[in-house]
Amino acid sequence: MKVFRDPRSVAVVGASDNPAKWGHWLAKGALTGSDRRSLYFVNANATSVLGQPAYASLSDLPEVPELVVLTVPAKAAAGVAAEAAELGVQGLIGITAGVRFDRGQMRVLGPNCLGLYDSETALSLAWGTFTPGPLGIVSQSGQVGLEIAGLADAQGIGVSRFVSVGDQLDVTHDEVLDDLITHESTRLVVLYAEGFGAGRALIRTVARLTAAGKRTIVLAVGGSETSREAARSHTGALTSAMDVVDAACRAAGAIRVTTPAEAVNLAQLLLHMEPTGDRIAILTDSGGQGAIAADIATAYGLQPAAPIDLAGAGEQDLGIYSQVVAQLQDFDTILITGYFGCYGNETPSLAAREIEVIEALQGNVIVHTMASGGAAVDAMRRKGIPVYREIESALAAVSAGLRSARARNIPVASEVKGLPGSGYLAARSFLCMEGIPFPRCVEGVDVQDLQAPYVLKTDWIPHKSEHGAVVLGLSSQDEVNDAHAELVERLGHGRYVVEEMDVRPQAVEMIVGARRDPAFGPVVVVGAGGVLAELLQDTTAELAPVSHSLALAMLGRLKCLPLLKGWRGQSAVDIEGLADLIVKVSWVVASRPDIHELELNPVRVTADGPLAVDTLITGAPE
Amino acid sequence: MKVFRDPRSVAVVGASDNPAKWGHWLAKGALTGSDRRSLYFVNANATSVLGQPAYASLSDLPEVPELVVLTVPAKAAAGVAAEAAELGVQGLIGITAGVRFDRGQMRVLGPNCLGLYDSETALSLAWGTFTPGPLGIVSQSGQVGLEIAGLADAQGIGVSRFVSVGDQLDVTHDEVLDDLITHESTRLVVLYAEGFGAGRALIRTVARLTAAGKRTIVLAVGGSETSREAARSHTGALTSAMDVVDAACRAAGAIRVTTPAEAVNLAQLLLHMEPTGDRIAILTDSGGQGAIAADIATAYGLQPAAPIDLAGAGEQDLGIYSQVVAQLQDFDTILITGYFGCYGNETPSLAAREIEVIEALQGNVIVHTMASGGAAVDAMRRKGIPVYREIESALAAVSAGLRSARARNIPVASEVKGLPGSGYLAARSFLCMEGIPFPRCVEGVDVQDLQAPYVLKTDWIPHKSEHGAVVLGLSSQDEVNDAHAELVERLGHGRYVVEEMDVRPQAVEMIVGARRDPAFGPVVVVGAGGVLAELLQDTTAELAPVSHSLALAMLGRLKCLPLLKGWRGQSAVDIEGLADLIVKVSWVVASRPDIHELELNPVRVTADGPLAVDTLITGAPE
Repeated sequence: MKVFRDPRSVAVVGASDNPAKWGHWLAKGALTGSDRRSLYFVNANATSVLGQPAYASLSDLPEVPELVVLTVPAKAAAGVAAEAAELGVQGLIGITAGVRFDRGQMRVLGPNCLGLYDSETALSLAWGTFTPGPLGIVSQSGQVGLEIAGLADAQGIGVSRFVSVGDQLDVTHDEVLDDLITHESTRLVVLYAEGFGAGRALIRTVARLTAAGKRTIVLAVGGSETSREAARSHTGALTSAMDVVDAACRAAGAIRVTTPAEAVNLAQLLLHMEPTGDRIAILTDSGGQGAIAADIATAYGLQPAAPIDLAGAGEQDLGIYSQVVAQLQDFDTILITGYFGCYGNETPSLAAREIEVIEALQGNVIVHTMASGGAAVDAMRRKGIPVYREIESALAAVSAGLRSARARNIPVASEVKGLPGSGYLAARSFLCMEGIPFPRCVEGVDVQDLQAPYVLKTDWIPHKSEHGAVVLGLSSQDEVNDAHAELVERLGHGRYVVEEMDVRPQAVEMIVGARRDPAFGPVVVVGAGGVLAELLQDTTAELAPVSHSLALAMLGRLKCLPLLKGWRGQSAVDIEGLADLIVKVSWVVASRPDIHELELNPVRVTADGPLAVDTLITGAPE
Repeated sequence: MKVFRDPRSVAVVGASDNPAKWGHWLAKGALTGSDRRSLYFVNANATSVLGQPAYASLSDLPEVPELVVLTVPAKAAAGVAAEAAELGVQGLIGITAGVRFDRGQMRVLGPNCLGLYDSETALSLAWGTFTPGPLGIVSQSGQVGLEIAGLADAQGIGVSRFVSVGDQLDVTHDEVLDDLITHESTRLVVLYAEGFGAGRALIRTVARLTAAGKRTIVLAVGGSETSREAARSHTGALTSAMDVVDAACRAAGAIRVTTPAEAVNLAQLLLHMEPTGDRIAILTDSGGQGAIAADIATAYGLQPAAPIDLAGAGEQDLGIYSQVVAQLQDFDTILITGYFGCYGNETPSLAAREIEVIEALQGNVIVHTMASGGAAVDAMRRKGIPVYREIESALAAVSAGLRSARARNIPVASEVKGLPGSGYLAARSFLCMEGIPFPRCVEGVDVQDLQAPYVLKTDWIPHKSEHGAVVLGLSSQDEVNDAHAELVERLGHGRYVVEEMDVRPQAVEMIVGARRDPAFGPVVVVGAGGVLAELLQDTTAELAPVSHSLALAMLGRLKCLPLLKGWRGQSAVDIEGLADLIVKVSWVVASRPDIHELELNPVRVTADGPLAVDTLITGAPE
């Protein structure tokens, strides 16, 4: 990757004097680093570009350039790329889309990318212009990267390094992120990704960025229904691809957002503070703006105190702002909302005092101001006070910042090959061996070792209730025999089992499942079962395996938590036991690479503990 | 109100040369209308202000001004106001806060307001400067009004009339809204309100604005928990003050938003189009931006088609944008997202063509552009194409626009006084008479006319199950007698009733309730019952009475709708019958002013119809 940091020589192939061509802008950008490195322009149809000599081809250059930027029409591009590889060029940035060639030893960024910018080495080989700053942008879509850079610029945030990875023919976003760990001026990273390839490796890279004090904000797309539809288990159907990306972000200490503006609003916050809690003080000079702030804070899951309304006191002495802020240091965040930031703009005699007061503000202060800019806003930015034009941007950033977590070390499970064998009996035996509790069960239809009531099940049919392959509530051997005869007639001979039916009162039905995500590997999922499952879409996922405390945290996130804690006078269920079961499921899926999906549905939980009463294990699809 | 439209003479009391005083800015603003009306400055300590003669007091003026703007310190203000009333001044704008006086015949705006602006009559008597335009702003908080005006200005939307109503000592926001119906240059209204006083009257006014083709966007605060806590019924506890405001907005054809930015983003949309449906086409030159748009559209409840990615085709010929848009006219909305709007800014040779193409765009087009401004953005605004810098602003506006409804005529119920009498039996008899079905029931404990199983209830204890005042599932006269003896021992003698227990299988439990909102009057509420009630917070409200079709629409909004429609092979319940019951409850509350809260909880609904199995009616609190 070194060649993409500070190459000693660069050639721009397709450099042009025509401002309608990208080669013009890339050549212009490249010129900004010409006192630091040799720079060559290549254009078969010109003898000079931007007042510099132009060469007909790479072979005509006085030296082999370390890095080549390729922006010629697609039909010519493959030939130039091959020539570069042959000449021994170390790195190539492929702007042109749809080019395929043998890269040999040469590293390739793109193709189909918008290039590269590095503020540390005056390396400007990208479409667009950048102001140096602390933000690293890594983007699978060049234009989304530029949108992020543009919005950041409007908030006074410059760029340390911009890398558009395009088709990732060779260099991946993972490698680019890895490279940012040692990139000193980068203090925060925004990653835009449309897919996560080897997601586990990416998590480790992002976790190392986090450990180096550099947060990663992940803008991901594809929260579509495709992945849900493909799932065979209920947990699969209830867990979206984005739930897994969120789990991966938590594991890596990253934060997922959904739009460029959200990314930049959050970046402004995280560059200057680490939100530590949800208690927020609101200081305003307008009752109305204070009330709006309190409502929006609540909507974003924060805990606002009643707004403090200075009314006209600010105009008497602006010092009241810093004095009151000093009294509010017990809050996790202090929001100033309203006219602050405008005083000096509209009343010049107050301008100097306003900036003095800004300098005196202490603690985790953020500002929503009616000002669209001006000296006061600039002073806030210099001091590192996040400042926003819209109240929702300010509060959404605080709320998103609270989703930030420490990266966790995901234990590596030793892997054992081999599925437990097909059918219900094999699956439950296997899971019982792993310590997951099921009701007592026998093969066949002889109930003498069991307690009534009984359940008769086929062994070979998944999703039994939907297929009428299970008979509940049988109270005697005779009833079991009759039910068996009926099933045999309808479904044929085969393996049947009788199980004790779990009829413990006040049981809460849950679903615990696991699956192997194509990008992020083993994932464990827990959610509300029964009728709540689909109505609430109440599930949460983590990368597997998980610890007991993380399993408890998962339960704490569920909307159905009140049911577990004891609802309307019912006794609380065994939450510790349920967490233990989640841990076990997470280790099973992590250590059994052949298992594609595993589901316990339902798990009935009472004060006496959880009991899985049905399960389904499926292997990887062909 | 006429004096606040186009007064023939205005006096600014407190006019000042000192730019640190509001009187300075108000005087400056007032000067802009000095060729249209007589203007007088009053200042006891100056002989001239802004180059104009200043008078010592109102009595010194050569005529009695029609309108007085009062911006002097609070201790002097009441005296001046009284003087104005005595002199026969027709209207007074009270900027100063905390002033109390006898207004006599004089109309008063404020006090504690930021004044008034009218673009039609060059009446500029407000803090702040405004560009003329189509937006009427009526605000209980002057500063929130100014924030809205500032954000609107940044989106190229000017103001027709700005009225800060302040403390509403005399002139209410209702009157100001009424006045806007005939205010020609006002095409859209944003109302900021912290309370709704006589809410029913306000709804009628807003409905008349809607009928006049002027939408009202309502920014309301106070989604706090106070009103919930005060409620005695479950529906009350599950229905927030904002749910009622939303119901009122629907009834008036208005749309509620939560922040100034949201109001302005929506205003930009509604000034130019009326969203008609949720199907949205996405046209982009970036796969990434298209994917983000699709995700966000889905998150906002829209139905996006797969994005159309022009990739580099736009650079070949910008005409492709208008050509593709012409093909997308079947969609309700067409979103262009990405670089469109920037071409001319960054490549001057494309500037003219870009504007040509903008002129050629047809249909309900909205644009999210990476451009922060420029000739193309200006051209879009001139043509009436809503254009946004952030994708979420664009899509949130479309989504909010779809909440817009026709104002409905709420029938006026003839009112009958008198509560049905206290106790369960009286309440259910009363409701049975109104056509609401209950199980059969007798006073006392004699079951001979009833079918088992039975329920024994106390008549006088509300929230019976929580107080152990009900015994379910009794199967014989003996069991009823035993249960009765036990209840008498525990709860004392009193009136008891026996009711048939509704044990119909596959019943869905719902809550239907009604209450009298302090501002908006009778409200009917329906929601999921049982365990879902609190977990889902799944209720919806409308102002009562409602029609059958509106009752059906209410059910259509509930998250538990799938349960009603038949869940996992269960048969659908009698949704029509449930709607009918909602209609009846809505008429009961609308026609009985003495009823404060009324609740049927639960209503058990099967394919055979709904049956209310408990009820509570409470009168107005003391």
